Amino acid sequence: MAEAGEDAQVDEQGDWLGPERLLAFSDGVVAIALTLLVLPLAELVPEVAEPETSGLTVITDNLAAIGSFVLSFAVIARFWAAHHRVFDRARRVSHTLVGVNTAWLFTIVVLPFPTEMIASFPEDPFTLRFYVATLFASSALLTVTAVLVRRSLPGDEAQGLRNTAAGGTALLLLLVLVVTLVAPSLGYWPLLLLFLTSPIERVLGPLVERRLARPPSG
Amino acid sequence: MAEAGEDAQVDEQGDWLGPERLLAFSDGVVAIALTLLVLPLAELVPEVAEPETSGLTVITDNLAAIGSFVLSFAVIARFWAAHHRVFDRARRVSHTLVGVNTAWLFTIVVLPFPTEMIASFPEDPFTLRFYVATLFASSALLTVTAVLVRRSLPGDEAQGLRNTAAGGTALLLLLVLVVTLVAPSLGYWPLLLLFLTSPIERVLGPLVERRLARPPSG
Amino acid sequence: MAEAGEDAQVDEQGDWLGPERLLAFSDGVVAIALTLLVLPLAELVPEVAEPETSGLTVITDNLAAIGSFVLSFAVIARFWAAHHRVFDRARRVSHTLVGVNTAWLFTIVVLPFPTEMIASFPEDPFTLRFYVATLFASSALLTVTAVLVRRSLPGDEAQGLRNTAAGGTALLLLLVLVVTLVAPSLGYWPLLLLFLTSPIERVLGPLVERRLARPPSG
Amino acid sequence: MAEAGEDAQVDEQGDWLGPERLLAFSDGVVAIALTLLVLPLAELVPEVAEPETSGLTVITDNLAAIGSFVLSFAVIARFWAAHHRVFDRARRVSHTLVGVNTAWLFTIVVLPFPTEMIASFPEDPFTLRFYVATLFASSALLTVTAVLVRRSLPGDEAQGLRNTAAGGTALLLLLVLVVTLVAPSLGYWPLLLLFLTSPIERVLGPLVERRLARPPSG
Repeated sequence: MAEAGEDAQVDEQGDWLGPERLLAFSDGVVAIALTLLVLPLAELVPEVAEPETSGLTVITDNLAAIGSFVLSFAVIARFWAAHHRVFDRARRVSHTLVGVNTAWLFTIVVLPFPTEMIASFPEDPFTLRFYVATLFASSALLTVTAVLVRRSLPGDEAQGLRNTAAGGTALLLLLVLVVTLVAPSLGYWPLLLLFLTSPIERVLGPLVERRLARPPSG
Repeated sequence: MAEAGEDAQVDEQGDWLGPERLLAFSDGVVAIALTLLVLPLAELVPEVAEPETSGLTVITDNLAAIGSFVLSFAVIARFWAAHHRVFDRARRVSHTLVGVNTAWLFTIVVLPFPTEMIASFPEDPFTLRFYVATLFASSALLTVTAVLVRRSLPGDEAQGLRNTAAGGTALLLLLVLVVTLVAPSLGYWPLLLLFLTSPIERVLGPLVERRLARPPSG
Repeated sequence: MAEAGEDAQVDEQGDWLGPERLLAFSDGVVAIALTLLVLPLAELVPEVAEPETSGLTVITDNLAAIGSFVLSFAVIARFWAAHHRVFDRARRVSHTLVGVNTAWLFTIVVLPFPTEMIASFPEDPFTLRFYVATLFASSALLTVTAVLVRRSLPGDEAQGLRNTAAGGTALLLLLVLVVTLVAPSLGYWPLLLLFLTSPIERVLGPLVERRLARPPSG
Repeated sequence: MAEAGEDAQVDEQGDWLGPERLLAFSDGVVAIALTLLVLPLAELVPEVAEPETSGLTVITDNLAAIGSFVLSFAVIARFWAAHHRVFDRARRVSHTLVGVNTAWLFTIVVLPFPTEMIASFPEDPFTLRFYVATLFASSALLTVTAVLVRRSLPGDEAQGLRNTAAGGTALLLLLVLVVTLVAPSLGYWPLLLLFLTSPIERVLGPLVERRLARPPSG
């Protein structure tokens, strides 16, 4: 901590904390949000249980609910893995970073709400835009987080840091958000592009990063 | 741990524990309470889902529920950040501190209950006072925690410790509680002062602290 | 780990794990069980919300639910603090200990079920006995855990270990269980004795311990 | 980390992370899934509460729900203990391992859904197969995880590692899955074999392992 202290304290007010508790707390929130996604699925089981139905009809009658559960699980797991990489080398967090991280946690905690709305309003354009906008906000905040973490590192480590800013994901989600505004009939399918972002990030990421990240040492 | 052991064990019964598990446990409880706040929102979605409604009506018809969710999220996140700062230098916790921390956790765990009451009784004065009283209790217990932690530190570290006692927040919430008793028609708006406490704490905090904190070394 | 390895591996099959993950996992389960207790309270709010009711009637009409919530919170917090003390010096856990700890976690996870039953059947003798029996099982398993942890310590540390076996609590709960069988009309009041166990343990604990704990080094 | 770095980076792209956050996150998800299992039990209490019923009828009328709760608790606890052993010596995790672990977490998070289906459709063959298939998928992914962790270890440690691959459990669950296809009338009883797997694994495990695990050092 001492070796990075000097050049970090010049552009902040010198009131830093270790990242351990912030990460443990964030992991807890994300783990709970991820696991709570199953509750609406579990809760609709007794509602449809009637003598003539079988377990299979629970699934076939609730494909929208199951699809939105799987999609939100995959998205949160992906965002958590990005968060993991972003903070892997961080050794201190500023108050600004705690604030941005809290806003990011808010987007994760909120996600079960639009997820549940998809199950109830699978064709509704507003629900589609609300869901994609939540994902975009989450991804954009993670990009800001990545930039802040990189700035907190000493110069040589920041240079060696791989592109972890999730900037490509945020850009892609902004694009999908525009698509939901002009062509809502495409529904949730454009979101599948999210799982192709690894190659996209490899190309676009470094360009975005170079623009956003002010190099910490000269 | 050894260097602070001697002068700490004189004013307690010498039965101290490391803070790691207490903090991990507290983080878990707070993270869960924070994330559970969304459950009532997610649960009201299927109730209002009817052919003629859209996802937008879920939001416009439940502004009180959404507002109370956002407010409670912001308050718990703020209290957690204060808890983080309070324990940042603690290396041992006494049984008294475990007890006060448990009482604080109780106020956090209970919070989803008055939060849910706001959604159902947005205009009810009793609900308003119950909610503000819970926040005040939480903040007051956090102030006691801060004083206990500071007393457990060796003299030179306690001197260097920034004002983290959240005493200003507790005072402000006491004031808001009085306002809800004499002028309940103002509703939840006075709570927005909470997000202006940083400047207030910078002025009032040190004064409060000086009164409460008995210096641990002479 | 090396210094305690030799004499511990003689009475077990030498397949030990570090306690960190076991404790983190246990803390997580207990924190969640503790926090989930509020859910039934939060859920009954919208059910009673009618034009003529106020937030105060939610509380006055559900005193059994609120009382069982507070009681279970206090009991789980107490058991967690005992678990904390029991494992404070443990450096390795055997497979047997993992198994006993899992059984203890089961009693904690199950507790919201009888807690909810108290809210619905406040006068029912079966519910009273089921609740007290769950607490007794939890406490008895914690006593077994304490004995197993003490046996895993090298001789000198085990000697220095304060009485943490919660044996007094288990004995007290057995007594309360007998009371619920012969005089169920006393209801839940005998459980208040739980919060007087500190003095009882100070007297009875060492006697119980001496019987149960086989000293690990001759 | 340095000593194992060289031979591990040759078969992956050299982008490894420490396992601490992955394990803490996994522990959180598993702890929550485990604890959420009780929610359906707690929720059915107020539904059956009528003047003439007692707490005992809540239990006798819901034996399928209680049985599926106990079974799923035992299975998740067992899988967590296996996960604990698998990662006990891991010091770095690859992106592939993060991905497989996420898929494993998905099977754990999903489990409350088929568990709830058992309570509502205790005799339904589809529900039986869905539940057993989920367990098999979880166990198979844990076996893959074990193989990946072993490959990441330097040669001498991998040699010394006890059989922790849960390969025997996966094989057993595949067998039970076949039984549910040809003889669904046996219901959930074949799953009790799960609690006899310790002797089975001791015999079959090493054979399976030898086939699956490519030795990391020639």
